Amino acid sequence: MPIPYHKRTHRCGEPNASDIGQNVRLAGWVHATRDHGGLAFVDLRDHTGLVQLQFNPDHYADGHKIAQALHNEDVIAVEGKAVSRGDRVNPKLATGEIEVQVDAIEVLSEASPLPFQVNDEFDASEDACLRYRFLHFRRPEVQEVFRLRHRVGRAIREYFNAEGFVEIETPFLTKSTPEGARDYLVPSRVRPGSFYALPQSPQIFKQLCMIGGFDRYAQIVRCFRDEDLRADRQPEFTQLDMEMAFVQRDDVMAAVEGCVKRIFKDGLDLDIKTPLPQMSEREAVERFGIDRPDTRYGMELQDITELVGDVELPMFREAIQARGVVKCMVAKNATSLTRKILDGLNEEVIGIDGPGLPYTKMTDGEGGATFSTGIAKFVKPIQSALCEQVGAEVGDVVFFMPGRTHTEAGKFLHPVRTKLATLLDVIPKDRWDLLWVVDFPLVEWDEDEQRWFSMHHPFTAPLDEDIPKLESDPGSVRAKAYDLVLNGVEMAGGSIRIHRHDIQQQVFKLLGISEEEASAKFQFLLDALRFGAPPHGGIAFGFDRWIMMLTGAESLREVIAYPKTARAVCPMTDAPGPVAEDQLEELGLKLNLPKKD
Amino acid sequence: MPIPYHKRTHRCGEPNASDIGQNVRLAGWVHATRDHGGLAFVDLRDHTGLVQLQFNPDHYADGHKIAQALHNEDVIAVEGKAVSRGDRVNPKLATGEIEVQVDAIEVLSEASPLPFQVNDEFDASEDACLRYRFLHFRRPEVQEVFRLRHRVGRAIREYFNAEGFVEIETPFLTKSTPEGARDYLVPSRVRPGSFYALPQSPQIFKQLCMIGGFDRYAQIVRCFRDEDLRADRQPEFTQLDMEMAFVQRDDVMAAVEGCVKRIFKDGLDLDIKTPLPQMSEREAVERFGIDRPDTRYGMELQDITELVGDVELPMFREAIQARGVVKCMVAKNATSLTRKILDGLNEEVIGIDGPGLPYTKMTDGEGGATFSTGIAKFVKPIQSALCEQVGAEVGDVVFFMPGRTHTEAGKFLHPVRTKLATLLDVIPKDRWDLLWVVDFPLVEWDEDEQRWFSMHHPFTAPLDEDIPKLESDPGSVRAKAYDLVLNGVEMAGGSIRIHRHDIQQQVFKLLGISEEEASAKFQFLLDALRFGAPPHGGIAFGFDRWIMMLTGAESLREVIAYPKTARAVCPMTDAPGPVAEDQLEELGLKLNLPKKD
Repeated sequence: MPIPYHKRTHRCGEPNASDIGQNVRLAGWVHATRDHGGLAFVDLRDHTGLVQLQFNPDHYADGHKIAQALHNEDVIAVEGKAVSRGDRVNPKLATGEIEVQVDAIEVLSEASPLPFQVNDEFDASEDACLRYRFLHFRRPEVQEVFRLRHRVGRAIREYFNAEGFVEIETPFLTKSTPEGARDYLVPSRVRPGSFYALPQSPQIFKQLCMIGGFDRYAQIVRCFRDEDLRADRQPEFTQLDMEMAFVQRDDVMAAVEGCVKRIFKDGLDLDIKTPLPQMSEREAVERFGIDRPDTRYGMELQDITELVGDVELPMFREAIQARGVVKCMVAKNATSLTRKILDGLNEEVIGIDGPGLPYTKMTDGEGGATFSTGIAKFVKPIQSALCEQVGAEVGDVVFFMPGRTHTEAGKFLHPVRTKLATLLDVIPKDRWDLLWVVDFPLVEWDEDEQRWFSMHHPFTAPLDEDIPKLESDPGSVRAKAYDLVLNGVEMAGGSIRIHRHDIQQQVFKLLGISEEEASAKFQFLLDALRFGAPPHGGIAFGFDRWIMMLTGAESLREVIAYPKTARAVCPMTDAPGPVAEDQLEELGLKLNLPKKD
Repeated sequence: MPIPYHKRTHRCGEPNASDIGQNVRLAGWVHATRDHGGLAFVDLRDHTGLVQLQFNPDHYADGHKIAQALHNEDVIAVEGKAVSRGDRVNPKLATGEIEVQVDAIEVLSEASPLPFQVNDEFDASEDACLRYRFLHFRRPEVQEVFRLRHRVGRAIREYFNAEGFVEIETPFLTKSTPEGARDYLVPSRVRPGSFYALPQSPQIFKQLCMIGGFDRYAQIVRCFRDEDLRADRQPEFTQLDMEMAFVQRDDVMAAVEGCVKRIFKDGLDLDIKTPLPQMSEREAVERFGIDRPDTRYGMELQDITELVGDVELPMFREAIQARGVVKCMVAKNATSLTRKILDGLNEEVIGIDGPGLPYTKMTDGEGGATFSTGIAKFVKPIQSALCEQVGAEVGDVVFFMPGRTHTEAGKFLHPVRTKLATLLDVIPKDRWDLLWVVDFPLVEWDEDEQRWFSMHHPFTAPLDEDIPKLESDPGSVRAKAYDLVLNGVEMAGGSIRIHRHDIQQQVFKLLGISEEEASAKFQFLLDALRFGAPPHGGIAFGFDRWIMMLTGAESLREVIAYPKTARAVCPMTDAPGPVAEDQLEELGLKLNLPKKD
């Protein structure tokens, strides 16, 4: 019989003991059905939870018959009375003290046999979960991911609103942006042969907002990168983008810290202490081998160059002769690291073009603690000095890494450190280590292309005191840049921007961007810098990645409602797809497919 | 001298009499400079307003020299003391009781000669305002437009959040949507020869969110249409999109009314009375000639078919013989409508393929009030009956329009009514007439293509009682659709959607969409309707248009930060632009430009 399903008295997760004796009207999905001693039971589900419906053939014969014929995921509306379950209370359910004795049922929509069950724990393949996204959405744990995403998005917007930031919508059909990755192109029909680019970030537009006097801007915005296929990248991703005028680094960082506090509070009800710690990029690389260190655990890299001057190991000698470094890392209580595991780590280092992974173990020998196995015989002469400096004890494994620079040694030791942390289970649970990394180099030298590249992007300002070195010693110029790192993952990156036309041109020159190229790509920014640009700076957060970290998801696909696969395909809509030839003709294009072999 | 500009004590619009005697630190743009009797004055501007700076050569000789050399739009920071202006108070400024006696100045950024002045009232062409968008942004009235846009966006999101709606981000790289306009295409590099489409709306995705159990969804989202060039369209526009499960029409309309109340409150501090009035599409067309009537003024269309049965005017006779209608419209006190104006209106009606615009005037003749001029001689026989029915008096002009249907007569009379309202200045100021138009036909017949088209879109549900007529009399089937109209402008359109697989297939069939086509385009929706779809419905608001109405802007370009021209070009970045041939090759494309004559 027709039920006014649009006037629900409760959501499914709401009725409880205080409703006993009351009439309720509910609507939702059939989560499960059971038949017990003549009574039919249905678990009715919506986004708030489950409630048990009871159909009694003596009380409501027609309803009982309908209930017996229900399938999982049928959509129904019911009216009935909340009654006590007596001693059959289900403590796992918020509604577990009651059930609804149904007086009326309407089947609003029938479900065909399902590709996978909603009430099972993820029995379905990821492909099925992407293809039948609407079924996947119905799972309570998936609902919670997207409701957290909603809460965090709101938290961010409300925070910035309260701080006087204005949301300005930047364009999607625009010009190539200089973020380094490939742009997605959009052919113009009105100007055949011309193309828009989808933005990799609103970088220049937000700078223009500052130059336009908006003072503070924040936007949660989609960005696009046509990157080569990598495990956990998405062609479109969401960024929190903000910018402030008349600021220096500390002002932006303080604003971000307020936002992060709010994210943790509204997202997970956690209180984060601010101000957050800061570390220079140099210190991060020296201590952790990387500019986004995971500081939740130790196992830091230590510089033992001065100790190993006389060690007769060729790879150490080479490093020292090349004025390089020798680093070491102590894995405490690491007796579980078998030869096989250690060989595997060695192979992995070689696999990323490293020199292998020299190590030794500290064992309980006859004459007391002693190095054994690995390169023991080479380092025994310095054993006591080494152990004193790096704190190695019996049961520890000591790893070594020579390198031309701290960066190079770190490049090979950091992945080992990360791997060992998991193997040795040294990462504390439920710990949120937030860290600012600052004082990045402005540019880095690319050996292959034999030129300087921006560490961040070409609009990043150098430290004032380093400006004189822009020409004489570019590699030593530090940037007014800052990255926010959470548990070893880069969560946000930003900088103070160049607001002076002459400095911007100098940096373009350093990067090998000719005046013609600069004019073709960035004339509007150069114009803007000439017509009264205030000092300004900002930051961009990877919003999807924040949600991934907060929910503990293992992939970006879990936190994006309608994601693409690693091959940039949507299994649900099957996008991208073919288009009609006349559509292409209208765009002044034709296919030019590579010939198949 | 260096000034810590990032620690401003006030924004420029803030210092007032209560600050007299205090030290202040300010930063902003030079809005204007003046030299008076040895003192130099600078109006310093930021987004909050203006403050007067005073440079006294006796007090601060260096600063006075710098001030004399300043140009408009230079960016400066200053420190000084707020002092009383005495009898030189400027009542137009919030800061007008004080000025700042400057002790220190730093020029942060110099401005070259400007393409146009910021402190002038819009002397610049629209093209210049688009090209130098950052200069245009600095104008206080432009700042206010975007700050209102921010407030209204926030109002909408906060309203829906409080009502339990979840923001879900829908994809931008997706499949063609069935909105009728052309899609923008995005070539895939990973699947050469395949294309994504940018969404014209998130219609299907939001329906899938409802089928996925999210219960209530709202998103402010960019949409894209590659439309033919029209005066005030934008290739990308912003939409407020929402959807609710387990609802009927009234529920969606009530939710929208709450949102609209909030928009007016937060946007303009106005209280709007709800519930809003409703009118059927039929009544709107009969009374106003259009389905989005401007109800701020009268001049309604009246049906005089029964009165004019014996009038010897061929165009009336034809309409009556064709079982059509004759409508009339009375312009009160319209003596200012000269022959020239009336001829012009006649031409305009002919210009849109109408039959011309028969009229007569009610004048004070010898024997009392009498029709004269125009078609007076034809309608004199029914003068008294006509005047009584339509309320024509001396000084009025009566317009006539025959038509095969009310819709046809309305098509020609509605533009006349709109034009007359302006000519006769009958539109009350500051009036916000909100109106729901409901009971639209589900489909309309297209004579050219000889087939039925959806009035809204193919997912709109028919009224339950009209479902049996889907096959027998489709033209009479009404839809569960609703449009929200403000002062004669369509502001939002929505409907209850089809949630039954069989009805959806029936509607596809009616629209001439074959099973193959439906499967190719909408298989994922058809799947979803088979796996437990709740009743659902929603609405989409044109967000840009709301901002345009609220700010009284004359073009969408005024309310979009970085808009395109009518030729879909961004004059600032010059997007769209050419791309390198190898970029196209990577996409499996080559140019195929039409040959120039």
